[in-house]
Amino acid sequence: MPSNPMPTSPQLKSIISDLQAIDTLRQISSLLSWDQETMMPTQAIDARATQLTTMSGLIHDAWNAPCLAEKMSNFIDLSNGTPVSDMSTDVTAFMRELYPLWKRHTQLSKPLVQALSTATATGQHAWQQAREQQSFSIFAPHLSEIISLTKEKITELGVKQHPYDTLIDEFEPGMTVAQLDAIFTPLTKQTIDFLSTLEPNNPMRIQGPFDPTIQLQYSKELMIAMGYDTHRGRLDISTHPFTIDIHPTDVRITTRINPNTLFESMSSTIHEVGHGLYEQGLDQRWAGTPYGAARSMGIHESQSRLWEIFIGQSLPFWEGQLPRLHALFPSTKSHDALDFFHASHRITPHWCRVESDVVTYNLHIMIRYECEKALFSEDLTVDDLPDFWNEKMSSYLGIDITNDAQGCLQDVHWSAGLFGYFPSYTLGTLIAAELHERLTRHIENLDHQIRSGTFTPINTWLKQHVHSHGCKKTTERLLSDLGIRMSPDLFFSKLQKTILVKP
Amino acid sequence: MPSNPMPTSPQLKSIISDLQAIDTLRQISSLLSWDQETMMPTQAIDARATQLTTMSGLIHDAWNAPCLAEKMSNFIDLSNGTPVSDMSTDVTAFMRELYPLWKRHTQLSKPLVQALSTATATGQHAWQQAREQQSFSIFAPHLSEIISLTKEKITELGVKQHPYDTLIDEFEPGMTVAQLDAIFTPLTKQTIDFLSTLEPNNPMRIQGPFDPTIQLQYSKELMIAMGYDTHRGRLDISTHPFTIDIHPTDVRITTRINPNTLFESMSSTIHEVGHGLYEQGLDQRWAGTPYGAARSMGIHESQSRLWEIFIGQSLPFWEGQLPRLHALFPSTKSHDALDFFHASHRITPHWCRVESDVVTYNLHIMIRYECEKALFSEDLTVDDLPDFWNEKMSSYLGIDITNDAQGCLQDVHWSAGLFGYFPSYTLGTLIAAELHERLTRHIENLDHQIRSGTFTPINTWLKQHVHSHGCKKTTERLLSDLGIRMSPDLFFSKLQKTILVKP
Repeated sequence: MPSNPMPTSPQLKSIISDLQAIDTLRQISSLLSWDQETMMPTQAIDARATQLTTMSGLIHDAWNAPCLAEKMSNFIDLSNGTPVSDMSTDVTAFMRELYPLWKRHTQLSKPLVQALSTATATGQHAWQQAREQQSFSIFAPHLSEIISLTKEKITELGVKQHPYDTLIDEFEPGMTVAQLDAIFTPLTKQTIDFLSTLEPNNPMRIQGPFDPTIQLQYSKELMIAMGYDTHRGRLDISTHPFTIDIHPTDVRITTRINPNTLFESMSSTIHEVGHGLYEQGLDQRWAGTPYGAARSMGIHESQSRLWEIFIGQSLPFWEGQLPRLHALFPSTKSHDALDFFHASHRITPHWCRVESDVVTYNLHIMIRYECEKALFSEDLTVDDLPDFWNEKMSSYLGIDITNDAQGCLQDVHWSAGLFGYFPSYTLGTLIAAELHERLTRHIENLDHQIRSGTFTPINTWLKQHVHSHGCKKTTERLLSDLGIRMSPDLFFSKLQKTILVKP
Repeated sequence: MPSNPMPTSPQLKSIISDLQAIDTLRQISSLLSWDQETMMPTQAIDARATQLTTMSGLIHDAWNAPCLAEKMSNFIDLSNGTPVSDMSTDVTAFMRELYPLWKRHTQLSKPLVQALSTATATGQHAWQQAREQQSFSIFAPHLSEIISLTKEKITELGVKQHPYDTLIDEFEPGMTVAQLDAIFTPLTKQTIDFLSTLEPNNPMRIQGPFDPTIQLQYSKELMIAMGYDTHRGRLDISTHPFTIDIHPTDVRITTRINPNTLFESMSSTIHEVGHGLYEQGLDQRWAGTPYGAARSMGIHESQSRLWEIFIGQSLPFWEGQLPRLHALFPSTKSHDALDFFHASHRITPHWCRVESDVVTYNLHIMIRYECEKALFSEDLTVDDLPDFWNEKMSSYLGIDITNDAQGCLQDVHWSAGLFGYFPSYTLGTLIAAELHERLTRHIENLDHQIRSGTFTPINTWLKQHVHSHGCKKTTERLLSDLGIRMSPDLFFSKLQKTILVKP
């Protein structure tokens, strides 16, 4: 429990100290990645790839140190993770989390880890160029290399039922293709059905242009209002908004700004602040160990999507922000909160995932999920990827993609080797709906608080029930303790209320 | 020679590869330092200190790897650096530079290196707080710790004639207190004499305020005009302007902006671009080895001071920049180039080194030089430092310091453990005067080129005669090949021409 760290034996202290030393290396690596996306001069990419490769080699060596294995073997059987001695509940939980991490790092070979590090650093650079020049062929050889190395990674880690299971496991421990299919197949159908019930809707647009400098200033105001500690983090601009947890005292978020709309910077900022608050809310005394780490990417995305959709697009939110919006962006004075609410709930299929509405968003995730499943089950080659993508876009969303920059090149993830990450966005969205329901029940006058710009009670509740637990509980336990099960029902019922029944 | 790298044997190639691997660690460490000064959230300081300490330990380990020593021993006797086999001139020069670097890193113990790393990372933070709160006592215990560790460092490296010699050697290889005294004692007298001959002069001030955003924009324009490659570097704001060489493809400079004057940002930017051009002009094929490294801090400062004083404060420069200055800062329209020239040559003792004029600047360096000499010869304690400083300020410059933030707390150097660095500023200034004389002789119509904003010929000449040589030549050889000897004569004769005889 946060206020009472578990008593640690000298042996466990020594393991913790090793983990913190490994984490220092990870922190450095994270800073290198953050800098690459936000600050680095373009021509430094090769030097940066070498730096990142060096760090990944050092991290690999540290996990593979025989003395760490030896210390761990006093607690667990290293071949399967089962306890070899009596351990307290706390220590059992600690080892339950540590073992798969250690196993992953020791199963992978150093040459592969370093090759992946180089390939993804240069791959991200090639992806940027490919996007700018709207040419998939610039990125294709890099993607092939990254996929080929990722397949080697699957082999080294061991194939579960489906090769893609091995990749999902890194972001959602224990989750499988079979489990995801059981959620995603009905979700896809429900979404398409839901879309078909919508009457053609074309809400008023809030017309720009909006000064980028003022948009950034407003993003910083929102960040602070939401409870983000700017002495332990910062906000910058990047092509693709992201959050990076260098250390609990150094959690950096980025946003992006489109002069033609307020919604892009606002939703990106609020989304990333949601992630950032999770990292800032972790138990600092356990920093560098599983106890002080975020639970899963699904839980992470539940935080960002909760803030982005269920708070940041709610009517009370727009009512509360309206005076500030009118003051900073005088051209919006003709619009009331309901206009903003409707504009932020405009349901229109769009080629771009991060600009998509709350309904079609999940279909974007389904497309990526199907691409990844097919790429790793050998059903799909890199060369055929654009056609596969475009066909899905057409059948799910009725959109014709004629330019890969607006198609399969739009996301940074694959260039960074992040296969298996996308499902977490949808899982997070479903959990977010459930968490929003808990907030409504447990926070008195939630809407009033949101309207008055008082976000502290939300943040306090999330910190107490989600953030501070780190990985002390399993995902299942964390959710079940809150009475949550992974299902689209509540999500769709909320959609019914906000989109079909106008306030 | 730049166009023809020396042929390398497999043995030498292997040494070079080791050096490049060490340099990658140094690059990472440099990024951590840059980020600390420019971007890092305040509360991340402890984590950053741990990260820097980790990196300094890794760098120490890499220099101390037995296999590097073994490879080097095929070329030189590791006890004294003398050749053990026939070597080409190039390889001899390479080993001449490598040996003292290797020796320094292998003589120092890892606990000391890491303790210094931690002490300076946290020391810089304490220094910032002390400056903000105008309280020397906040910084004093940190400074005592850093000095105590630096004394241990001197002991481990071996005391030469004067303990301070050991520190100077890191920045000016081979330079000693005896040699510096021989230059600095007459320089101090000459400067004080020179000041006494000046008639009271109170040139027109160029009144602000000047928009910081436009000042930054103008700094970026100057940087590009001077030939700085922005694809291999960037410009940011920091409390104390600096240049950091992460890699030849990633050379970052900072400046600072005072809304009340244009001169602070302009001189800082031009100074740091001078440093940056040196780093960008090094021979990239030798990056990570002594051949691809800057020669000494004195040579480094000669580049920055050449641009800052002899180019950036010259009448042709102001004549050339005038239209742009008038356009960006319309309130200056009543001033002509001569006003700017005079204002930039206002000779007035000031408490602040970096805001000082070209004449009194060297006296600031002399004060720091005498403080450092006294601190390491045990004549001066940290507690007595403010009084020692203030007394010198009064006797050399007639300035009463009543606030340590404007006294011995003004520079970042000591908090970063940089003892022995200050003399390089004055050495660099003297060399800059000599280099300016060479430019005048070798570049046709130098003044005309500067007036027309064409800085390429200057940069080309410097690259050919200074930058590209890295450490291939010794400092003495580099200077003597250009017909330069370290003396204040030319510097004073230039002062006579620019300050006493008005254009």
